[in-house]
Amino acid sequence: MAQCDIHLLLTGDELMSGDTVDSNSAMIAQALSAMGQTVAHKLTLGDDRPRLVAALEQASQTAGVLIMNGGLGPTQDDLTAELVAEAAGVALVLNADAERHVRAWCAARSIEPNEANLKQAWLPEGAEIIHNPQGSAVGFALVVASTLILTTPGVPGELKAMLPEVCDRVKAVTGGDAIHRVRFQTFGIGESTAQALIDEDSLTWPEHVVLGFRAGIPQLEIKLTATSSDSPDVMQCRETLERLLGDHILGEGDITLAGALQQVLRSQGKKMVAAESCTGGLIAAMMTAEPGASAVFEVGFVAYANHIKHSILGVDEAILATEGAVSEPVVRQMLSGALARSGADIGVAVSGVAGPDGGTAEKPLGTVWLAWGTETDMHAFKTVLPTDRAMFQKLVAAAGLDLIRRQLLGLPKLPDYFNRRAI
Amino acid sequence: MAQCDIHLLLTGDELMSGDTVDSNSAMIAQALSAMGQTVAHKLTLGDDRPRLVAALEQASQTAGVLIMNGGLGPTQDDLTAELVAEAAGVALVLNADAERHVRAWCAARSIEPNEANLKQAWLPEGAEIIHNPQGSAVGFALVVASTLILTTPGVPGELKAMLPEVCDRVKAVTGGDAIHRVRFQTFGIGESTAQALIDEDSLTWPEHVVLGFRAGIPQLEIKLTATSSDSPDVMQCRETLERLLGDHILGEGDITLAGALQQVLRSQGKKMVAAESCTGGLIAAMMTAEPGASAVFEVGFVAYANHIKHSILGVDEAILATEGAVSEPVVRQMLSGALARSGADIGVAVSGVAGPDGGTAEKPLGTVWLAWGTETDMHAFKTVLPTDRAMFQKLVAAAGLDLIRRQLLGLPKLPDYFNRRAI
Repeated sequence: MAQCDIHLLLTGDELMSGDTVDSNSAMIAQALSAMGQTVAHKLTLGDDRPRLVAALEQASQTAGVLIMNGGLGPTQDDLTAELVAEAAGVALVLNADAERHVRAWCAARSIEPNEANLKQAWLPEGAEIIHNPQGSAVGFALVVASTLILTTPGVPGELKAMLPEVCDRVKAVTGGDAIHRVRFQTFGIGESTAQALIDEDSLTWPEHVVLGFRAGIPQLEIKLTATSSDSPDVMQCRETLERLLGDHILGEGDITLAGALQQVLRSQGKKMVAAESCTGGLIAAMMTAEPGASAVFEVGFVAYANHIKHSILGVDEAILATEGAVSEPVVRQMLSGALARSGADIGVAVSGVAGPDGGTAEKPLGTVWLAWGTETDMHAFKTVLPTDRAMFQKLVAAAGLDLIRRQLLGLPKLPDYFNRRAI
Repeated sequence: MAQCDIHLLLTGDELMSGDTVDSNSAMIAQALSAMGQTVAHKLTLGDDRPRLVAALEQASQTAGVLIMNGGLGPTQDDLTAELVAEAAGVALVLNADAERHVRAWCAARSIEPNEANLKQAWLPEGAEIIHNPQGSAVGFALVVASTLILTTPGVPGELKAMLPEVCDRVKAVTGGDAIHRVRFQTFGIGESTAQALIDEDSLTWPEHVVLGFRAGIPQLEIKLTATSSDSPDVMQCRETLERLLGDHILGEGDITLAGALQQVLRSQGKKMVAAESCTGGLIAAMMTAEPGASAVFEVGFVAYANHIKHSILGVDEAILATEGAVSEPVVRQMLSGALARSGADIGVAVSGVAGPDGGTAEKPLGTVWLAWGTETDMHAFKTVLPTDRAMFQKLVAAAGLDLIRRQLLGLPKLPDYFNRRAI
């Protein structure tokens, strides 16, 4: 194995019991990946001295860099500094930089440093500290045999704040070219469809531009990575993706569907309204999860009960009785009522069978009607999404936001993901 | 290391790149933990032949049981069966049970099995299949040296469906007593407070009853585990927890806050309404995420804009102007309006400064007013939760649900978590 292999060693009993799902290692891997490095080996152990000693011994024979996570706290379960010192054959000493950090951290909180606080400043002799802008425990760097060991705390916010310095220290060992990366956020297209479009395209994809997918609900992130010297190829691939994926692309970086819709509403000086039945408030919650919602989101009506669809939104009782709540006239009237009562410029209304009960032969589980647009330019569509309740609600709410976005941008009335599901 | 050590080996490039957060290993660990077993060693590797070979060799020397996850699919990256056969020194053969499963799976979907489907039926000679009720790839069990190797698929739903058989096979090797377990879901109490209450209690805690915490947002799970022969002690500890934690306990098993509130509303034949500003629909979304919401949840008003608080809920414009939207009279009027317009029996209204902007000296970031109850028995409370926007919204929404639950149950008007934050 190459000398520059990067290994991770995660420690903590809570990672072994299943009580905690580890997201730290993904955070570290993503940060390394953004500079073109990959984790080769990831080991997770409890607070278990003999196993940790064996793991450190093995890593110092096979890894170029070992990033440890966890075990830096003040309790006696926190073994990291002690075991790294043992592996390096050096003593634990009161590190002056670490002590300064702990004392400053305590002073900022008007507390006198106690023994537990100061334990965190005892580091292997010769270690350099990795600054922790958020917590009292610093990390440290030490070369053992020919392996660079970097230690980091298990608290995700502290780890995140320390990753830039960790990456700089890794880079000093692994070297590596600067990385050129483009990240698109998309909606309404799956990984295999996107991959098939690219495979079938007439332009050959340059081998050294790496295409990656990160599936989220409801978004799919599609990313391009290459070294800086291949920038022209990245730009070409970027144009290819823009051509192939078209209006599935919401934007770049970390943009969300709700964030993209907020941008469009803000740029057009418009406000929206939502009238929700089966999504039960999720459309409103997605919009208002983003800061700045008050400038573009007027009001949400969670009209769950039928008599409320009538009394609050003005849906015709006779139509509710004859057509049922999951029907085209009902979603259209829900939207009309919501627009009239709020004075909003544009909106969406949804009514469907979220399940697990309530499906019929005519309206099976997953049936949903959506209406979107304005009083004079209103559209409606029916589809069936036979999945579990939580997923159904997420997909319908996301489609609702996307339909408003598309109408504001003048994109085709029926998006691809509906055309494929026309019934 | 003991012969019965359980090791996990997770495989897949997506686990190394950080594109996927591994939750499978926590699912496996929890299933094992429910029968009193602990994972000793967890290794994660990419689809990397030499490293996987080395890991299998090492595990077959040190583990009693090795549970592998991933690499059972139809592509050439899926190396599990091939490498386990290699480690066992046997050939890959077309397993009759596995072939029957693949053919039945394809037949149920009216497709002809292709080469990729059938690749999943080629297993090491002598392997027994582990049935997969959900997918086309079965798992398998094979003893290599003295290690029982169990292989499982990476798709979480398939893994979940296979875990009972996996656990039975583990138990056949590890033995182990039956386990007695109690799981409480609680709200409004933190892990360290709960632990302190138990430590300070006059009754001594029996050593062999293990107390565990699983922190979620907004709930905290508190669990008791012991072998069946210690059942009387578990019952005594259960009573201790009920006495110490009192009305923080929502119920047992997997119950959620919204589910607990639904139960109370249903048993009293009552319906609720929510008038939300700062939580932006999250109260409604939490209630309607649970099946059966339509019987107890009438309507939610997401009255985000001030003029909507007036036009839809009837809040006095003069009071909005003088007191501001985050004030006692406004949340009281929001709730009154929501109750009157919906005809619901009970409800909650919230208005606060979610951030990141909008804080003032008088109403700093995280300030929130809640009103709850009925027109004739209405209460209001102000608190400050200085945290990030997402956490603020979750905590306020959860408190809103809990306050209705408490009023319906006749619990003390101000819960402990507010008494500690009285300002």
